[in-house]
Amino acid sequence: MQLGMVGLGRMGANMVRRLIKAGHQCVVYDVNPQSVADLVAEGAIGAATLPEFLGKLDTPRAVWLMLPAAITTRIALELADQMQPGDTLIDGGNSYYRDAVDLAAQLSPKGINVVDVGTSGGVWGLQRGYSLMIGGNKDAVQRLDPILAALAPGQDGSGATPGTTDTASQGYLHCGPTGSGHFVKMVHNGIEYGLMAAYAEGINILKAANAGEHARDADAETAPLHDPQYYQFDIDLAGVAEVWRHGSVISSWLLDLTAGALRGDPTLANFGGKVSDSGEGRWTLRAAVETGVPAPVLSSALFARFSSRDNDEFANKLMSAMRFAFGGHHEKS
Amino acid sequence: MQLGMVGLGRMGANMVRRLIKAGHQCVVYDVNPQSVADLVAEGAIGAATLPEFLGKLDTPRAVWLMLPAAITTRIALELADQMQPGDTLIDGGNSYYRDAVDLAAQLSPKGINVVDVGTSGGVWGLQRGYSLMIGGNKDAVQRLDPILAALAPGQDGSGATPGTTDTASQGYLHCGPTGSGHFVKMVHNGIEYGLMAAYAEGINILKAANAGEHARDADAETAPLHDPQYYQFDIDLAGVAEVWRHGSVISSWLLDLTAGALRGDPTLANFGGKVSDSGEGRWTLRAAVETGVPAPVLSSALFARFSSRDNDEFANKLMSAMRFAFGGHHEKS
Amino acid sequence: MQLGMVGLGRMGANMVRRLIKAGHQCVVYDVNPQSVADLVAEGAIGAATLPEFLGKLDTPRAVWLMLPAAITTRIALELADQMQPGDTLIDGGNSYYRDAVDLAAQLSPKGINVVDVGTSGGVWGLQRGYSLMIGGNKDAVQRLDPILAALAPGQDGSGATPGTTDTASQGYLHCGPTGSGHFVKMVHNGIEYGLMAAYAEGINILKAANAGEHARDADAETAPLHDPQYYQFDIDLAGVAEVWRHGSVISSWLLDLTAGALRGDPTLANFGGKVSDSGEGRWTLRAAVETGVPAPVLSSALFARFSSRDNDEFANKLMSAMRFAFGGHHEKS
Amino acid sequence: MQLGMVGLGRMGANMVRRLIKAGHQCVVYDVNPQSVADLVAEGAIGAATLPEFLGKLDTPRAVWLMLPAAITTRIALELADQMQPGDTLIDGGNSYYRDAVDLAAQLSPKGINVVDVGTSGGVWGLQRGYSLMIGGNKDAVQRLDPILAALAPGQDGSGATPGTTDTASQGYLHCGPTGSGHFVKMVHNGIEYGLMAAYAEGINILKAANAGEHARDADAETAPLHDPQYYQFDIDLAGVAEVWRHGSVISSWLLDLTAGALRGDPTLANFGGKVSDSGEGRWTLRAAVETGVPAPVLSSALFARFSSRDNDEFANKLMSAMRFAFGGHHEKS
Repeated sequence: MQLGMVGLGRMGANMVRRLIKAGHQCVVYDVNPQSVADLVAEGAIGAATLPEFLGKLDTPRAVWLMLPAAITTRIALELADQMQPGDTLIDGGNSYYRDAVDLAAQLSPKGINVVDVGTSGGVWGLQRGYSLMIGGNKDAVQRLDPILAALAPGQDGSGATPGTTDTASQGYLHCGPTGSGHFVKMVHNGIEYGLMAAYAEGINILKAANAGEHARDADAETAPLHDPQYYQFDIDLAGVAEVWRHGSVISSWLLDLTAGALRGDPTLANFGGKVSDSGEGRWTLRAAVETGVPAPVLSSALFARFSSRDNDEFANKLMSAMRFAFGGHHEKS
Repeated sequence: MQLGMVGLGRMGANMVRRLIKAGHQCVVYDVNPQSVADLVAEGAIGAATLPEFLGKLDTPRAVWLMLPAAITTRIALELADQMQPGDTLIDGGNSYYRDAVDLAAQLSPKGINVVDVGTSGGVWGLQRGYSLMIGGNKDAVQRLDPILAALAPGQDGSGATPGTTDTASQGYLHCGPTGSGHFVKMVHNGIEYGLMAAYAEGINILKAANAGEHARDADAETAPLHDPQYYQFDIDLAGVAEVWRHGSVISSWLLDLTAGALRGDPTLANFGGKVSDSGEGRWTLRAAVETGVPAPVLSSALFARFSSRDNDEFANKLMSAMRFAFGGHHEKS
Repeated sequence: MQLGMVGLGRMGANMVRRLIKAGHQCVVYDVNPQSVADLVAEGAIGAATLPEFLGKLDTPRAVWLMLPAAITTRIALELADQMQPGDTLIDGGNSYYRDAVDLAAQLSPKGINVVDVGTSGGVWGLQRGYSLMIGGNKDAVQRLDPILAALAPGQDGSGATPGTTDTASQGYLHCGPTGSGHFVKMVHNGIEYGLMAAYAEGINILKAANAGEHARDADAETAPLHDPQYYQFDIDLAGVAEVWRHGSVISSWLLDLTAGALRGDPTLANFGGKVSDSGEGRWTLRAAVETGVPAPVLSSALFARFSSRDNDEFANKLMSAMRFAFGGHHEKS
Repeated sequence: MQLGMVGLGRMGANMVRRLIKAGHQCVVYDVNPQSVADLVAEGAIGAATLPEFLGKLDTPRAVWLMLPAAITTRIALELADQMQPGDTLIDGGNSYYRDAVDLAAQLSPKGINVVDVGTSGGVWGLQRGYSLMIGGNKDAVQRLDPILAALAPGQDGSGATPGTTDTASQGYLHCGPTGSGHFVKMVHNGIEYGLMAAYAEGINILKAANAGEHARDADAETAPLHDPQYYQFDIDLAGVAEVWRHGSVISSWLLDLTAGALRGDPTLANFGGKVSDSGEGRWTLRAAVETGVPAPVLSSALFARFSSRDNDEFANKLMSAMRFAFGGHHEKS
């Protein structure tokens, strides 16, 4: 089958590679000509402009956008202007699901299908396949099946849960109308934040298991550590992450990656501890709040990222100012 | 090798079965004679009393306790009274790590080794092997190696993280002095609570993705749902859990189990939603607090369980009482 | 000065009463004729329809809406259709600040001012005065000063913080352009949720200070309470709330109300513990999330309300289902 | 009445001053002779050593300790060695309530009473009086009544909640047996942390209300701010804090202090944002966890302090390491 890909960053380029490997034809475009040239060298058909890109696609066209969320809608509308009834625009990026809902409503009168595909797998997707969460009308999604099947992991080592009759066990699933793919992917990422923070907090507690080896200040403002004899452990964090990978209840792919990172450098000196967030965690929380669903774990994980980037600074200053005001407490240097 | 097992509940009995299958000799005791008889029928050597149990063990003895945390120390001391220098007591239950530290200090003058083994794997351990986190002095732990290796998964499908040189990749790890095994297991369970809650919250948000299909009360006290058009999705929760198992960043063993549970009954009608906690989550939080490590995700997960059992009831009544006092707001029925 | 009031519920009616008492003229309207009649009996000028209401107001009109958020915009637009350049619409309800921003943008071409007034004080405002947070253009707000001054507490027992030069110390403040009043009120309520939950959690902990008096189950799944001798206190909650009111760091008006509620009935038997939320807490959280500000306390307080209404039920069932799947754990009845 | 005071720091010295002013006789001791001399100049009777101190007290002695938690028990035992049956030791510091329970158990055979007094009021207590939460046996506490009444605010502006028949409305309360005073004070501080964080988070959100005025990066990893037109407010934080002091639901003494701090310097440039915690918040959380009471707000407030001191650093590095491992994401500089 033929697919057009717009946006050849880390994700887009690898998806093209996986499709080519599976025997599909890919027409590709990026604002950076070198990105296009690289993939042409690997078997893709390149285009220097969006009109040229559209011209090289057979109708009904299938155009996959793998772009930053901030520009996806603009490019989608620019493309749609030159597309025809029956064509399909696929948004595979980290877009807000509402943008997909809105885009579908806007392009529906023109007969252009909008399919949104939430895509998980990161830099490993090229090799492992991508987990795909798909929204859109049934026919449009059905038509893309060969592409979706090739991008997904297919039959992998994880097997199928008994009772599964759809494509989910091959790693792709039609979740509902346009927007539902990104909605499911959004929540996926919200969960991802929670899982990551759970491991991170736990391992940070293990790291502190030797707190009793060092005396702690005991002044008027700080309580001493009771019973330091219970905090005398120097835990090999990489070893623990590794042992948990085998037979424990908390084994997971994120733990595999964590074990690898800690084995590489137990001090993680290459990282400063400013954790980015890309939008989905925020949107997940907004959905929770608007629908009245408690999400204390997912929100705590998101806020930890905000705090890691010092967005809590003024709040902290306020608390110190209050402490000074009622108790004359100075901050410790 | 020979091992004595005291406590033949779900966990203890299966561990004996796994050891017998691996060719080890097991002497077993339980307050329930039927539990003993069952395992004798499968090849274990039974004992009707603790003295008889100790008498059937070769010295230096290796005695594994798989008992409720509440009685472990009592039974351990009762046994130790009749044990000899060089013998080893192993606590494999969900005990507080401090109890192991204290027990080791108490039994050290008698020359009795105390080894604590945090054990993860649940009812699946018989088949998958148990992830073992071990604390104790080096010699005592070394002597138990054949037993530990047999209980652990060994070479499983998860492979070894490059650079691993210890036994962690076979699923068991000597973590440090007595207490460290349970400490690591405690944190393991703390993380487990966080992971479980992350999935549960996320899937609960997916379940609410159709909130816009139903009108919401719009009275003086409740804000209406803005933009209900964005909450029109009826998500197949079992399908989503399944697709996430394949290639996504959040694939894990807990997700495998979740997919199975949702496939079996998407409404989970067999469960009432009163979630137990067994102590480790609480102890993890205490360790975090005492060592000054932030654990907002792990604590949120623990408190969600407390709330699921209605322990927040009086706090909620207080908030309603305040609302009534300042705003005349009545609770909705 | 003259003011028209639309919406004579708990808040609107009391505001009219306070204005009449201060010598202002009030024209009033409500869908419920009895509400109008009641206030006419207290000195207001009544109107049976919106056109009649508008007709009784001198131009430039000042029309205050005190309506449920869900219908405010609709009524505002209906009124604006019949209003003139220079007239002012004031939204004093619990509306979303974005609605005020949008309304101002929509009515600006017609020359109709939109002023939004966040109003705090609840049922006590009639007597204590209302704390007013005001958004709108300077002239429109300035023109309303006599009304705002009369609704606000004025010189109350709280004094003015040294350095205060504006009207804030009399309990009303022009916060910025239209929308800023409701924005500030929104955050006020977000904080309110946090304060209420802080007291509620703390007092719930005091209530549990006698946990050691009763034996706790000690089975395989539940850890016993260590050191029950430290939980032998039967705390008089009403007395504690009272003593904190006098000289403690946590004295507050909410604490005054809490002490009153507990003195009235320490068991709070009139309340079921289903705590409503009215929108502002949700919107506060959305603002935090969108601007990247950590708000773990405010979100925890909001989610506690959601959970009090059992919106966590499916998440809890999922956690129980996972526990059953990996450990064979049944829920306790 | 006569009282001996050991520990003349910020709190102890001011309590002596308040007692002298009320006509009581104070014998004082501190390791720092200058502290003793200062109070002697204000009317106290000084002592250069603990034996001299005890010798100057009439029996039955009343000895108040106002010391860092870390040394209170040691000094208490040193004093008790030289005290007589019927004497009373009072711990008014920020001690762990369990220390008081233990001390009482230890000194009970000697006939020495142990009374614990949780004391709130900070540097303002000299002028406003201290809120006192008292534990101990009835007779011992009753004997101290003149001292307690003088330290407490007495009849202050807050009035008495109708129905109050004990001393709580004068700002002191006998809460139960030894330990209960510190227990109640511990929870008081736990609540205090929650209140402070609620204000701090809310005001931090207000500070970000102008987020839409500045363009935000919109790269592949960061979602743009939707609808920046809704974040165009430059809020006068000091003004808002002031207006909330008058008639709003969230007025409180902490808000009074906050308004003062923001009026003094809206940027709080004198503070770095490293917020200390003194033990009670931790102990409150431990009590919540051990008794199964959900405390998401209080824990979030405590963890925010831990994070303000960068104790979350390793956890954050781990999350960045995971992001790099699965997505090739580099931290932003």
